[in-house]
Amino acid sequence: MADITTRELRQPIDVAEYLFRRLHEVGIRSVHGVPGDYNLSALDYLPKCGLNWVGNCNELNAGYAADGYARVNGIAALITTFGVGELSAINAVAGAYSEFVPIIHIVGQPHTRSQKDGMLLHHTLGNGDYNAFANMSAAISATMARLNETYEIATLIDNAIRECWIRSRPVYIALPTDVITRKIEGERLKTPIDLSLPPNDPEKEDYVVDVVLKYLHAAERPVILVDACAIRHRVLDEVHDLVEASGLPTFVAPMGKGAVNETHKCYGGVYAGTGSNPGVREQVESSDLILSIGAIKSDFNTAGFSYRTGQLNTIDFHSTYVRVRYSEYPDINMKGVLRKVIQKMGALKTNPAPHISNTLPDQEQGSAEQRITHAWLWPTVGQWLQENDIVITETGTANFGIWDTRFPSGVTAISQVLWGSIGYSVGACQGAALAAKEQGNRRTVLWVGDGSLQLTLQEISTMIRNNLNPIMYVCHTL
Amino acid sequence: MADITTRELRQPIDVAEYLFRRLHEVGIRSVHGVPGDYNLSALDYLPKCGLNWVGNCNELNAGYAADGYARVNGIAALITTFGVGELSAINAVAGAYSEFVPIIHIVGQPHTRSQKDGMLLHHTLGNGDYNAFANMSAAISATMARLNETYEIATLIDNAIRECWIRSRPVYIALPTDVITRKIEGERLKTPIDLSLPPNDPEKEDYVVDVVLKYLHAAERPVILVDACAIRHRVLDEVHDLVEASGLPTFVAPMGKGAVNETHKCYGGVYAGTGSNPGVREQVESSDLILSIGAIKSDFNTAGFSYRTGQLNTIDFHSTYVRVRYSEYPDINMKGVLRKVIQKMGALKTNPAPHISNTLPDQEQGSAEQRITHAWLWPTVGQWLQENDIVITETGTANFGIWDTRFPSGVTAISQVLWGSIGYSVGACQGAALAAKEQGNRRTVLWVGDGSLQLTLQEISTMIRNNLNPIMYVCHTL
Repeated sequence: MADITTRELRQPIDVAEYLFRRLHEVGIRSVHGVPGDYNLSALDYLPKCGLNWVGNCNELNAGYAADGYARVNGIAALITTFGVGELSAINAVAGAYSEFVPIIHIVGQPHTRSQKDGMLLHHTLGNGDYNAFANMSAAISATMARLNETYEIATLIDNAIRECWIRSRPVYIALPTDVITRKIEGERLKTPIDLSLPPNDPEKEDYVVDVVLKYLHAAERPVILVDACAIRHRVLDEVHDLVEASGLPTFVAPMGKGAVNETHKCYGGVYAGTGSNPGVREQVESSDLILSIGAIKSDFNTAGFSYRTGQLNTIDFHSTYVRVRYSEYPDINMKGVLRKVIQKMGALKTNPAPHISNTLPDQEQGSAEQRITHAWLWPTVGQWLQENDIVITETGTANFGIWDTRFPSGVTAISQVLWGSIGYSVGACQGAALAAKEQGNRRTVLWVGDGSLQLTLQEISTMIRNNLNPIMYVCHTL
Repeated sequence: MADITTRELRQPIDVAEYLFRRLHEVGIRSVHGVPGDYNLSALDYLPKCGLNWVGNCNELNAGYAADGYARVNGIAALITTFGVGELSAINAVAGAYSEFVPIIHIVGQPHTRSQKDGMLLHHTLGNGDYNAFANMSAAISATMARLNETYEIATLIDNAIRECWIRSRPVYIALPTDVITRKIEGERLKTPIDLSLPPNDPEKEDYVVDVVLKYLHAAERPVILVDACAIRHRVLDEVHDLVEASGLPTFVAPMGKGAVNETHKCYGGVYAGTGSNPGVREQVESSDLILSIGAIKSDFNTAGFSYRTGQLNTIDFHSTYVRVRYSEYPDINMKGVLRKVIQKMGALKTNPAPHISNTLPDQEQGSAEQRITHAWLWPTVGQWLQENDIVITETGTANFGIWDTRFPSGVTAISQVLWGSIGYSVGACQGAALAAKEQGNRRTVLWVGDGSLQLTLQEISTMIRNNLNPIMYVCHTL
């Protein structure tokens, strides 16, 4: 082991302070989690690094909250303790992995010596296996940073934060109690972590752009279809410019709600196969070229795999590849490709998008029905929402209902359409509302059923304690 | 694949019914868990199999409740759904693994065809990996039963239930939606699952018994020290008979509380190194032979590894081996050994145990202090408890405090001294109270702090809905 002694360090800094200053650098201001024996002394470093400790009611809720915080703030951090804490949060972290949400999960571990000796400590399986829990997290982490050897700690931290951001997925950082106070080189902090995407090979990128443009110019009825990964992999500026430059009818998949300005004249509504907004299905399924950006074609996102679109009419843009009809171009990020397509596009044939509004359907106009119906509710919600609201819908009734709500501009929609863990929305609401408060004055609005609420309801106390004021609609379906 | 067609079955029975009839056979009457898409149709089979569905507020609580139920009832079952459900419960199941509590964890999975095709279903990681979650559970399960191939389903179910019982640890049963209704041979149910321990090799057992007796007869000041695994591996009858037959001073480790009749003249109190009851430490640490039964020498169970006992003065009895001084005898179960030691023991040299009572310590007698002190509280609790009460103490203040409470006879103590997951006791209270109700008229008493309560408090609603009436002391420490 080639450890550097403290004497050789120009600006010695404790590991915990280094880690937390890096969190602050990438934009994190509040850290979610639950205290525990093996993370307590790390928590003491948070205030001096400009970080607010939320202190959640339990780890699952903390994980959901970190997820909601990341979806508004861009990235989040979660601190739990060994075994009992990290395992309580693992469902929330798995959800973030599934849905491409960047959470830096920091797990306080026992002293490295205790681990080496296999001591019979509390929060262990009693069998001396100190790797069991980290191994469980490996399948739901973009990378694992086990901070043991001093010489590599800063590299592992920086790499984990970068991977979290670039791949937009959770990473796992194991922080043993004795590592918290170890000294490492603080001068390194003067160089910010490089969060930029690796650039595409220019020749390859040009080639793909030419192929895309060839099909785009030949198309008679092209449309744009935007989905979750456009949000999660941060190409919303490119999507916006593409819509403006092309004037093409633009639709979103359910998981893509909020990716597009829904008051724009090109916006045509939600496409979800047989679950589409009125008029949408016809236009998308008769299109001869779908520019599909960041698709996740899961069951709930496609109304039970009811897409009737052909791969021969589709160009798929993804964070790691582009596929034109059946030709796949691996190792290329859609961001650069979209940017160049916009620059080189020129004039296209366009058709108007279906008109989308929040007016009530005919049968609800002047209806004498006293009960609140879904047909009445969701368009009405769209009339009531304000610009830049954050709208959180629980899995089930609410996240299906919101398809029929046209958003004002700037709305962020949060839902777990793929992972679908009930109770998620309440924790996520806490995290989202906190990020919204840090950003200024955005409203956070939650739609949740009484059944889902019971899984995670204690997190309302965290909202109160942190002076958050989300609007919560708790619904009981008759 | 050598599947048997339904036509060849003498008593065709659906897989779910077979499984649930087996649960009933081994003594389970209530099943804990949370409904989900992939287990819903299985739940419909519960009533006709004589099983009550509890329906918990969330899966972590359900897991804790199953743990508490198992500690009173002997074994428990837990049903969750794929991904979101099983991962929410995984911390509770890990705790049961750590503390040797038998829980049959049944996980509803997607259709086997969807799994083979790697379909992009909700509750998946979106990467087609249908093994990720089961793999996480493998490290905390005595065995994994993946019910896929019809011909082996009954064998896998029977084996999993047997392993759960014999090894007193959780097992994992994966039940895909299409397997629920598959037909298997029902005649097999006429033969109960063999839950008996594999017998020890008689020659080896006799040898070990002779060695034990040699040291026991030579000892001047032998004592008995009983710990958790005596409870979990079901040798309490043997412990009781050993105490009666030998008349030796008998102590318990904290995790062994409730294993011994604490009103018995031989009972001397809790031994936990420097955290021992008064007078206990001297007698245990000066003993020249400790019969240590089912020890788990974890940090919290030994007051920070503060045992001052020597291996030269110790005989360790375990479920899979016996160790006499430094000689280890593997592959032998303590149950048979203890039974024979009792039979062959004859007269021993004995010394009286320290007198143990629930009288208040001197400084509390006539104290003018108005606040409730620990020194006053825990002996007073002992005066108030009744025979056969179930006493649950949360990790922290309560499960350390209870060391100073002398129990009436028949008390079952429940605590998570090794795993130590806060919030556990509230879920465990629901499960224990339900098992107590099924057994007749035992009281269930919970001691929990307000901080721990907030992790799992919604489970109080499950207690109310199931007409359970535990006594809950929610404490706030000043």
